[in-house]
Amino acid sequence: MKLATIRTTTGTAAVRIDDDAAVELGATDLGAFLARPDWKDAAAAADGPRHDLAGLDYATLVPRPEKVFCVGLNYRTHILEMGRELPRYPALFAKFARALVGAHDPVEMPVGSEQVDWEAELGVVIGAEVRHATPEQAAAAIAGYTVVNDVTARDFQYRSIEWLQGKTFERSTPVGPWLVVDEGTPGEITCEVDGDVVQKADSSDLVFSPADLVAYISQIITLVPGDLIATGTPGGVGHARTPPRYLAEGSELVTRIEGVGEQRNTLVTGA
Amino acid sequence: MKLATIRTTTGTAAVRIDDDAAVELGATDLGAFLARPDWKDAAAAADGPRHDLAGLDYATLVPRPEKVFCVGLNYRTHILEMGRELPRYPALFAKFARALVGAHDPVEMPVGSEQVDWEAELGVVIGAEVRHATPEQAAAAIAGYTVVNDVTARDFQYRSIEWLQGKTFERSTPVGPWLVVDEGTPGEITCEVDGDVVQKADSSDLVFSPADLVAYISQIITLVPGDLIATGTPGGVGHARTPPRYLAEGSELVTRIEGVGEQRNTLVTGA
Repeated sequence: MKLATIRTTTGTAAVRIDDDAAVELGATDLGAFLARPDWKDAAAAADGPRHDLAGLDYATLVPRPEKVFCVGLNYRTHILEMGRELPRYPALFAKFARALVGAHDPVEMPVGSEQVDWEAELGVVIGAEVRHATPEQAAAAIAGYTVVNDVTARDFQYRSIEWLQGKTFERSTPVGPWLVVDEGTPGEITCEVDGDVVQKADSSDLVFSPADLVAYISQIITLVPGDLIATGTPGGVGHARTPPRYLAEGSELVTRIEGVGEQRNTLVTGA
Repeated sequence: MKLATIRTTTGTAAVRIDDDAAVELGATDLGAFLARPDWKDAAAAADGPRHDLAGLDYATLVPRPEKVFCVGLNYRTHILEMGRELPRYPALFAKFARALVGAHDPVEMPVGSEQVDWEAELGVVIGAEVRHATPEQAAAAIAGYTVVNDVTARDFQYRSIEWLQGKTFERSTPVGPWLVVDEGTPGEITCEVDGDVVQKADSSDLVFSPADLVAYISQIITLVPGDLIATGTPGGVGHARTPPRYLAEGSELVTRIEGVGEQRNTLVTGA
């Protein structure tokens, strides 16, 4: 089952994406919908107004999540190939909701940055409130998976030892197009820039799995429906290349996870 | 003028704190109230239900700010005395709203941490939407000042290079009791633990002033009414002492800024 938030003539609507149409779920966005304790059954049963798939305008998956957690270095193969030790704890940082855009929206390059870089990531969306979760409770609290590109202004990221300011630029982070629920394990993750494959990895090659991250974060703070965890990016970012490669006005960014979904975003100059 | 959010028998209410009573402002909390473009005039004119000052139960100042930005090392004298250079850019990190508590609430020590530390800070609350602000626009967007203690689990803070996980524990960060509006420059900031003065500094001794921070952050993302900026802590934290000193169950934490306000919190074991 695939769920999304779409823009309509009257605002936004949570929908189920079927093979032949998007079916409204009776909530203004997926965040509000996931707050229903019976959201999974309600989503399966929904029979609201329908929209043609061809004309869908995807909003960011959950427009105002209470929390967005991001994870630093988390791909096992990439850490080991760089000669580093596997971390004992995840490196966690935050992003604010205003940074999020839809899966086909323009991605805004921050004014003043000349080092805008890509970071394809598997996104995990929370579907139930959870605190001090056991591994089983953590797995059960995951609503499903989505695609995230944690687009990063490297020059701002490294202005201080804390990464936040390179990570939370307004309208810089595409999330979506949809949430996949109960459809098996996410597969290969790839990122393409102007047709070149720049990242390619197995999205299950994580030091800290989605359930590990939910369990760990829930020791710190309560996770609630709609919260988003971006699970980290594999090797191949532009900043680590020789010479470095960055995104520019007009760059076409395609982020894809097998079994999850695909985003296509064009880079524009930020407001 | 002093504004606050108090808990009432029916929920919470935004109030003006007069010399003889708290006067309701007609909004459920100060965040909702600050979203009114005319909030300052409306606050001055309000004449709603009144509450005795003696029995007031202060909620955290803005219960659900869209964003909480915190600043790392920012006290000029403290940076210089440690032999470091003044930073060119502020070190910014985030905190989620669930971490915030009221000025007299219990502060919860996270389960699993043995290094819970204090960080008295001047808090800045935003009163108008602002993006790419000039210094003048930034200063005008500040609603006022409050007291924050950015209570930190050092062991969690240093588990990775990103500080977030030591900074955003549930119900760990007192903010309040009130917002001071148009009452001059904040003065001396002090922190006391069980009666010992552990931090004492001039809260204007900042590398990045409140207006500097608003202007800088507004280049990254839009600041909106109710957003909170914790401007950094002076020297004297427990982790930097020899031997180190930490908070414990029952510790009494008093955080005070002359001309702004005072918090009194007792440390308890977290849920």
